[in-house]
Amino acid sequence: MSIQKKQNDMSTNSALQAAYPWTKAPLLASAPMLNIATAPLAVAVSAAGGLGFLAGGFDISSMEGNLEEAVQLIKGSNSTIREVYATSNILPIGVGFLNWGADLLKAIAAIEKYRPCAAWLFGPKKLPDDLRPWVEQIRAVTGGETKIWIQVGTVAEAVVVAESLDPDVLVLQGSDAGGHGLAQSASIITLVPEVNDALGARQLNPISLIAAGGIVDGRGLAASLALGASGAVMGTRFLASSEAKVARGYQEEVLRASDGGVSTARSTVYDRVRGILSWPSRYDGRGVVNQSYVDAVERGMGDEENRALYAEELKKGDAGWGPNARLTTYAGTGVGLVTEVIPAAEIVANVIEEAKNAFAWSC
Amino acid sequence: MSIQKKQNDMSTNSALQAAYPWTKAPLLASAPMLNIATAPLAVAVSAAGGLGFLAGGFDISSMEGNLEEAVQLIKGSNSTIREVYATSNILPIGVGFLNWGADLLKAIAAIEKYRPCAAWLFGPKKLPDDLRPWVEQIRAVTGGETKIWIQVGTVAEAVVVAESLDPDVLVLQGSDAGGHGLAQSASIITLVPEVNDALGARQLNPISLIAAGGIVDGRGLAASLALGASGAVMGTRFLASSEAKVARGYQEEVLRASDGGVSTARSTVYDRVRGILSWPSRYDGRGVVNQSYVDAVERGMGDEENRALYAEELKKGDAGWGPNARLTTYAGTGVGLVTEVIPAAEIVANVIEEAKNAFAWSC
Repeated sequence: MSIQKKQNDMSTNSALQAAYPWTKAPLLASAPMLNIATAPLAVAVSAAGGLGFLAGGFDISSMEGNLEEAVQLIKGSNSTIREVYATSNILPIGVGFLNWGADLLKAIAAIEKYRPCAAWLFGPKKLPDDLRPWVEQIRAVTGGETKIWIQVGTVAEAVVVAESLDPDVLVLQGSDAGGHGLAQSASIITLVPEVNDALGARQLNPISLIAAGGIVDGRGLAASLALGASGAVMGTRFLASSEAKVARGYQEEVLRASDGGVSTARSTVYDRVRGILSWPSRYDGRGVVNQSYVDAVERGMGDEENRALYAEELKKGDAGWGPNARLTTYAGTGVGLVTEVIPAAEIVANVIEEAKNAFAWSC
Repeated sequence: MSIQKKQNDMSTNSALQAAYPWTKAPLLASAPMLNIATAPLAVAVSAAGGLGFLAGGFDISSMEGNLEEAVQLIKGSNSTIREVYATSNILPIGVGFLNWGADLLKAIAAIEKYRPCAAWLFGPKKLPDDLRPWVEQIRAVTGGETKIWIQVGTVAEAVVVAESLDPDVLVLQGSDAGGHGLAQSASIITLVPEVNDALGARQLNPISLIAAGGIVDGRGLAASLALGASGAVMGTRFLASSEAKVARGYQEEVLRASDGGVSTARSTVYDRVRGILSWPSRYDGRGVVNQSYVDAVERGMGDEENRALYAEELKKGDAGWGPNARLTTYAGTGVGLVTEVIPAAEIVANVIEEAKNAFAWSC
């Protein structure tokens, strides 16, 4: 058996620790969830020793305002991130982009001005070509201080990105993830080790691997490390944080749903009912099964009718979410492990502590 | 956060160790792969300190012959399993059944005669009712010496089986698994912890959890333990063992395929082309994408034509396997991590050693 040297050894952990000196080990990041991961969540995660991401999304018009809010929150924080920011002039949160839609010029201007510690690139129309100007210009305007995170979902994508773009971090997203991802992929159980071996066999520069998809507590984080990742990203878990900018109806649906392998499903219907039609065709999104899904997939309802019903449902507000309702609850298969809304700082502290305990029994 | 006590603590590990005293920790089993897991593979796995399973399948007419062969192999073995068998009269291998087809009377007679250390039940038409006579009669004829393993794929299945049938072991099969499984499920990343919490919350008797689906090396085994399992089952990895009864063409396809999230797919087409039509409708099977799959799923070819082409392909022998050929290569998403054919004993020793190393860095 030719298992490559694990990425979670000292060298790559040190690389992440050096870039993000306020973070605790193992590295835990919050995903840049569109419309949900705003400044309060991102800053709370970083302040607690994680790495918070702000959602830039595909229409980045609100990004500069969010970054400005983050700066103010960081300046008023009691955490070490305040000193990190004051002394390094690197913003101790990252920003995520949906590259099939995000405007490069505006993004670069904001990155140059605010210097986020990471730029997470995902979903270009063409991989890797469309990301090349992003990688080059981000590195140019911050002298490499803004680390390049690129999200992929297959071994082939990981290899082509590593060879063409030499990112600092590869986010390896498995099939359990909520929200958008590749319609076809393995879970991180096989994706992370196979990518690790594939990169090792090609003797590429060390790239930190961060696992995403199905990680909601310390057991998932510990498993990610065992598989060879240097850390993990959580999305679904932070939907039920006090700081998430999420409707009460959405959050309650996250708390309600369990057994996510059957209560969630991958589909493009959640985009179609909202008129979001520009995702490249290789992607879909995992959400809690609801009436839009049942009508479209099980009953063959056309998009026009389904969209009209969705528009009506919007008027119901929080009551528009639920298994028999129509508003979208993007969530991963780990949704059943999320049972309470607590502050992001508690989530970060608990998960890191649990991860350590998950390993401790073997020592 | 209300994470339940991990199942891989001393009590449940001790239960498995007591039942299977020849096994090394962490417990590693080989899956009862239909037509492939015959006596030489099952005995080799147990002789190396794992737990080997023989495939009983849905037509168990060859099972008694396989058990007899296993007895002879065990009697001639140099491993401690020879003494275990001589002193306990428990056969140190397990037997797997596909319960939608397997004949209860014949199975019980064989179990009473050969006393395998485990009976792995999977795929009844009706869960849990159809398994109740199996559980009761197996326990009756061996005085509980044949431990009951029941394979499930959702939290709901795990809870109903635990409450109704009180098995010794729940095999939790995630979406990455090769061969048959639920058409809809999460990977073990979320399935194992959520089942663990659900059983704990119901204060059921301790049931050992064994993870299955995507585990092909020590990293996967270590991840399984971190998630709360007491051990793991591997199928795909043992397809490339010297002892697997598998066609050379099949085995070469397992070695060739990589990036299993996209090179394998879940479908019922692999059954339909072979005229196997009796699986309950909630199941399908994951196999390497081939011409049967492409024709059926992407080109809309009818089953009759696809079956006729399959029948023709059979005449080609080993050349009938491959991405442009038609014979079925059931395999999990971890297929890309399988790169060489080695003896089962080496697989067992390597994987257990690697799992220990995957944890060691944290100590």
